[in-house]
Amino acid sequence: MIGKLIAKIKKTEAPIVVGLDPMLGFIPERIRQGAFQDLGETLEGAAEAVYRFNEELVEALCDVIPAVKPQIAMYEQFGVPGVAAFKRTVDLCHAKGLLVIGDVKRGDIGSTSAAYAVGHLGRVGVGGKSYAPFDEDFATVNPYLGSDGVKPFAEVCKENNKGIFVLVKTSNPSSGEFQDQPVSGKPLYELVGEKVNEWAQDAPDPEAEGYSEIGAVVGATYPEMGKRLRKIMPKSYILVPGYGAQGGRGKDLVHFFNEDGLGAIVNSSRGIIAACKQEAYASFGEDHFAEAARAAVFDMKKDIAEALGW
Amino acid sequence: MIGKLIAKIKKTEAPIVVGLDPMLGFIPERIRQGAFQDLGETLEGAAEAVYRFNEELVEALCDVIPAVKPQIAMYEQFGVPGVAAFKRTVDLCHAKGLLVIGDVKRGDIGSTSAAYAVGHLGRVGVGGKSYAPFDEDFATVNPYLGSDGVKPFAEVCKENNKGIFVLVKTSNPSSGEFQDQPVSGKPLYELVGEKVNEWAQDAPDPEAEGYSEIGAVVGATYPEMGKRLRKIMPKSYILVPGYGAQGGRGKDLVHFFNEDGLGAIVNSSRGIIAACKQEAYASFGEDHFAEAARAAVFDMKKDIAEALGW
Repeated sequence: MIGKLIAKIKKTEAPIVVGLDPMLGFIPERIRQGAFQDLGETLEGAAEAVYRFNEELVEALCDVIPAVKPQIAMYEQFGVPGVAAFKRTVDLCHAKGLLVIGDVKRGDIGSTSAAYAVGHLGRVGVGGKSYAPFDEDFATVNPYLGSDGVKPFAEVCKENNKGIFVLVKTSNPSSGEFQDQPVSGKPLYELVGEKVNEWAQDAPDPEAEGYSEIGAVVGATYPEMGKRLRKIMPKSYILVPGYGAQGGRGKDLVHFFNEDGLGAIVNSSRGIIAACKQEAYASFGEDHFAEAARAAVFDMKKDIAEALGW
Repeated sequence: MIGKLIAKIKKTEAPIVVGLDPMLGFIPERIRQGAFQDLGETLEGAAEAVYRFNEELVEALCDVIPAVKPQIAMYEQFGVPGVAAFKRTVDLCHAKGLLVIGDVKRGDIGSTSAAYAVGHLGRVGVGGKSYAPFDEDFATVNPYLGSDGVKPFAEVCKENNKGIFVLVKTSNPSSGEFQDQPVSGKPLYELVGEKVNEWAQDAPDPEAEGYSEIGAVVGATYPEMGKRLRKIMPKSYILVPGYGAQGGRGKDLVHFFNEDGLGAIVNSSRGIIAACKQEAYASFGEDHFAEAARAAVFDMKKDIAEALGW
C-alpha cells in the first residue's frame, strides 16, 4: 500500500495528507442547519453534518492530494452515528480515488490488537463470508505495549496489502514527558524508532522503491528529532503532523525527507479544512470553505516544494 | 464514580470485573445460528450474536459482580454494527445495575483526546441539546502522549463524575520493551506511575474513602512491579488484567491491594466468559456457558478471598 501512496504523491506532486477532523464549529451554518432539519439536533444530525462537510471537501481536493487522514475521535464523539459517518467518509474517499489513513492510534495486545487490525485494515470472517469492516488503507498505532501490540497489525498488513504508522515522537508539547526520557544513553523515541526499523524490515512493499508498510509518526514541531529519526528508520515513511496550526513550517520539514525526495508525508488538518477562518482565506467566506481549503492546499504544496528545493 | 465502584465491590464482596471480550468462537452454535438466521452471515448478524451472548452472561452474573469491562476491539472488528453492539451492551449492563469499564485504550492530544473523552465518558453538544454518546463509567487510557493526552480525560471525568485507568504496566510478555526501560534510575513504568499519582491528586472522589477518579492498569503477571506501583500510587485504584488465562493467580494479587482491603479490581475475560471450554467447567456444556461463567466467578472470588485472607 505504501507503493500506492508513493505513486499518488508523485502524481499529485504533493507529499500532503489532509486531516479530516471536523469539529461542529468548523462546519458552515448552512450545512449544520440542513442536517439538523433533516435529522434533528441529534447524534445522527451531527454525524450527517460532518459527512456533508467532508463531501464538499473531498470533492474540492480529490484531484490535488493523494490521501486524507480522518481522525476517528472526531467521529466517535458522536457515538454510533459518528462512527457510521467515519465509515461513510472512508468509502467516499475511496470512490474519489483518495487513499485513507485512519488516525485511530489503536494498540493493545495479542488477539485484541489483531481484532483492531482486522476491523480497520483487514477482513473479518462471519460464518462462510468475510467483510472489510472499516477498510482504511493505513492506520496509526500506539507502541506503548511493545511488539505484542504492533505485530498483529503487521501481520494483517501483510495479508491485506495495507500499512501502518507507529507513533514514535508526537507533535504535542508534553510528548517529551515519556518519549524523551533517556534510556541507555538515548531518548526513548529513538529506541521506539529502532524497533519500527526492525518491524519495517519484515514488511517490505515490493512496489515501493525500498519503503516498508511499517511507517512512523514524527511531529513537525520537533525537526531536529525528525532528522535523527529519518536516519534510524531509512525504510519507513514518516507521517508528519503538526504543520500549520500546531506551528510547523515547510523549512522544518526538510530533514523528514530522504535524499530521493520521498520518505515523508505531511499532515495538515485545521489549516486546510478550516482555512476560511484564517485571515488569508477569509475572503472565500464560510460557504466556500472547500474552495478556501483548495487554495490552502496549493499554498502548502508551494511552501513544502520551496523548502525541499523542488 | 470510583466511590460507586467501591460500594459495589463491597456489596458483592467481589473485587472482580468480567471482561466482555467475545470472539465468535466463544459463542454457542445456537446463539450464532439464531443471529445468522435473523440477520444473515453479515456484520449485523455477527454483532447480534455478540450482543445475545452478552445478554445471557449479564443476566447470569449481574448480582454477583460489580462491573464488566467490554473490550471495544472485539466489537470494532465487526465495523459499525459491532460498535452499535458495544453501545447496546453498555446500556444493557447499566439497566442490570453493573458499572462499565470501557476498555478502549484511547489516547491522543488536546482537542482530540477531549473528543474521545466526551464520546466515551462525557456529553457532546448538538445544537441546543446534549447527548452521552457511549456513556461508559470508566475508560482505559494510553499515556504515551503525556499529560496532553490524559488531562482532557481527567477534565471530562471531573465534569461528569467518571473515572479512568491509565496504562502503566501492561500484562503482556513484551510490555517491558518500552515500559521497563530504565530512566533516571527507575523503570519507565514507575515514572508513568508517578505521573498517575500526580494526576490522581487533582481528581479526588469525595465518596471514595480517599481514592481518586484516576486509576491505573497494572498486569497480574508482574506481581513484584505491582507491589512497588501500589506504593507509588496510593490513591489510585489498580485495574489488574492478566488473571486466569494469562497466568495470574490469587496469590499474585495480594500486593495490588492496600491495607484497607481496597485499591484493586481484578479482571478476567476468557477465564469467565469461555469457562465452559475449560475442563473444570466442561460439564455445563456449551449451551449453559453463562452458568459455567457464574461458577467460574465464584471460584475466582474464593481464590482471591483466600489469597487476601478475607
